[in-house]
Amino acid sequence: MNTLNDPQTPFAVVDRARTDRNIARLRAHLHASGVPLRLHVKTSKSLDVAARVFPGGPGPVTVSTLAEAGYFADGGYTDVLYAVGIDPHKLPRVLALRRRGVDLAVLLDSVAQADAVAKASADAGDPVPALIEIDCDGHRGGIGADDPILPEIGRRLADGGAELRGVLAHAGESYFADTPAARREAARHERDTVVRAAGHLRRAGLPCPVVSVGSTPTAHAEADLAGVTEVRAGNYVFFDLVMAGIGVCDVDDLALSVVVTVIGHRPDRGWILTDGGWTATSRDRGTATQRIDQGYGLVTTLDGRVLPDLIMSGASQEHGTLALRPGSTGVLPELPVGTRVRILPNHACATAAQHRRYHVIGGGAAAGAPVVEAHWARHDGW
Amino acid sequence: MNTLNDPQTPFAVVDRARTDRNIARLRAHLHASGVPLRLHVKTSKSLDVAARVFPGGPGPVTVSTLAEAGYFADGGYTDVLYAVGIDPHKLPRVLALRRRGVDLAVLLDSVAQADAVAKASADAGDPVPALIEIDCDGHRGGIGADDPILPEIGRRLADGGAELRGVLAHAGESYFADTPAARREAARHERDTVVRAAGHLRRAGLPCPVVSVGSTPTAHAEADLAGVTEVRAGNYVFFDLVMAGIGVCDVDDLALSVVVTVIGHRPDRGWILTDGGWTATSRDRGTATQRIDQGYGLVTTLDGRVLPDLIMSGASQEHGTLALRPGSTGVLPELPVGTRVRILPNHACATAAQHRRYHVIGGGAAAGAPVVEAHWARHDGW
Repeated sequence: MNTLNDPQTPFAVVDRARTDRNIARLRAHLHASGVPLRLHVKTSKSLDVAARVFPGGPGPVTVSTLAEAGYFADGGYTDVLYAVGIDPHKLPRVLALRRRGVDLAVLLDSVAQADAVAKASADAGDPVPALIEIDCDGHRGGIGADDPILPEIGRRLADGGAELRGVLAHAGESYFADTPAARREAARHERDTVVRAAGHLRRAGLPCPVVSVGSTPTAHAEADLAGVTEVRAGNYVFFDLVMAGIGVCDVDDLALSVVVTVIGHRPDRGWILTDGGWTATSRDRGTATQRIDQGYGLVTTLDGRVLPDLIMSGASQEHGTLALRPGSTGVLPELPVGTRVRILPNHACATAAQHRRYHVIGGGAAAGAPVVEAHWARHDGW
Repeated sequence: MNTLNDPQTPFAVVDRARTDRNIARLRAHLHASGVPLRLHVKTSKSLDVAARVFPGGPGPVTVSTLAEAGYFADGGYTDVLYAVGIDPHKLPRVLALRRRGVDLAVLLDSVAQADAVAKASADAGDPVPALIEIDCDGHRGGIGADDPILPEIGRRLADGGAELRGVLAHAGESYFADTPAARREAARHERDTVVRAAGHLRRAGLPCPVVSVGSTPTAHAEADLAGVTEVRAGNYVFFDLVMAGIGVCDVDDLALSVVVTVIGHRPDRGWILTDGGWTATSRDRGTATQRIDQGYGLVTTLDGRVLPDLIMSGASQEHGTLALRPGSTGVLPELPVGTRVRILPNHACATAAQHRRYHVIGGGAAAGAPVVEAHWARHDGW
């Protein structure tokens, strides 16, 4: 029976009980709203994690790469949205996945992309479903809900041989919404913006069956989703310090961590050195701009108890530096060479991306090092 | 015949001519110093790249993980230094690699580690060679050259059944040495510190055959390496914007880049969006504290010409944002949807770590998209 003392460090750990609790929480919230979830799989990239979200069998998923689409197709997932603006070069691969029986939809926000999708659809005799990306907060891509180009894009899709499937918004700025009121406002604005865009398409005589919203902060924030047909969220299965920092979850909801081993000490500098550098945690410093800067992550004991004020303050390729957070009046804990600790990450998506699989522990209280119950696969690349 | 227009983006590219030029430059410098190179393979993690450094067959290498040690052992490399402080838990794997015929040496800086290596050596009947890490600039681990614990660690190794092979220093702070004079000073201090430590061991009657120094900035900075037996460097095969930013190389020496495709525009914000996010470039922001902040990287055309003042200013998981650098009086270039550009990275080690292989181009001037001549393998994990 392996425990977290056995695999060679560094390695990624998923706490199954916390994952299940996070999944149940959003499930209950969305049940109240009556809108189904389209799980974003880019955080875990794991069929094993997705199976916990969809215990009854494959459900609708969002992917961030066509590699994810292929991997989830292999796992029986046939309702897939590729939610990064389509590069026309990728359309042959989209069509190939569709020929495998995957209802794979793409995303776009320009006439150029709409024409490319329409042409590829017409050439293949397969109307590729496309969502039009609507910008609700200036975060990244998308067009304004009231932009007159919206019906034009819709028409080019519908008339050119593609399938106009609907509209999508992502409230990316909600990652900085650090009060419940701010997140509710972001969720309502995301909803209202995309519903308004859908209205414009319908008034232009165009179909708009799908009205898609989502981000982990907004998905948990508002129950009234009138006019919305699906909610996308992915980070919430693991959560992370950025989400805890804005109050979407608590630190003890964090289901992903990285086990590292102490390999040295610099008492003159207040440092404890580990064998977990940025290859293990990623270079993500998402909490640097939050009220509490967690460095590269919070440190816990191997069984998950947070070590007060101890953070991973620095990272080289294969070295981590642990130190008390600036201003702490605490005492550096005694952690001899060979001691294993866990790092709770700033950004679960980025930290998970550094690993090829997850070591799964049951979670909950138990004496000694947690037992590794299973290994869950992870699929990356493009 | 594939060109950089063919593989699906994002993907990593290595310019062979630049790599060879970088390799030749350090080779000539070290030839003048008379000290051999122990290539650090953590940047490329590629047998194909190492073969260009050692055209006559496998030479001495430095690794940052035991996975690299195993991969290079598979490739015939038998003189290997694992240059991260040893976690005692990893000693069985070290011994297993040694049983395969690899002269694998470990690094340490404490009595606890020395005792663990000595015990494992004695138990296995195989004296594991160990270098003692000497701190020369307060960058990370190591003990002071004059610390009385140094001969004590050496004695415990030698008397306990291990092999005391020598001392090692890494001038990690030289990554911030932004003048030739500062780098030369760092190189001399690295040399003098570790040579002094070797003297302490020898005066205590202990052996010290290896005196190892190295970092890419210091390796190029000083020809007088009296007392030093080997130089470690790895980043230099590719170089990167951090190295260019302090003047170790020029931007046109950078041999690693990532090809991405334009997927959208936000003219209202001055943004061009691409399909290359932090999964493609890493989250490394190493130039943020340099005189010129390059964002997530400099943008070039597909054939490698730098686009003036255009940087990758933002990164989501699978989205990159290109924009003119702050203060630029330039004009955002016309890059329609589907256009491919290349990103020159801040930190080659971190960007390379996001990819499973390299697409290799010949380099040099040629019309049209560069031809992909080869694919070079890369091995990661722990």
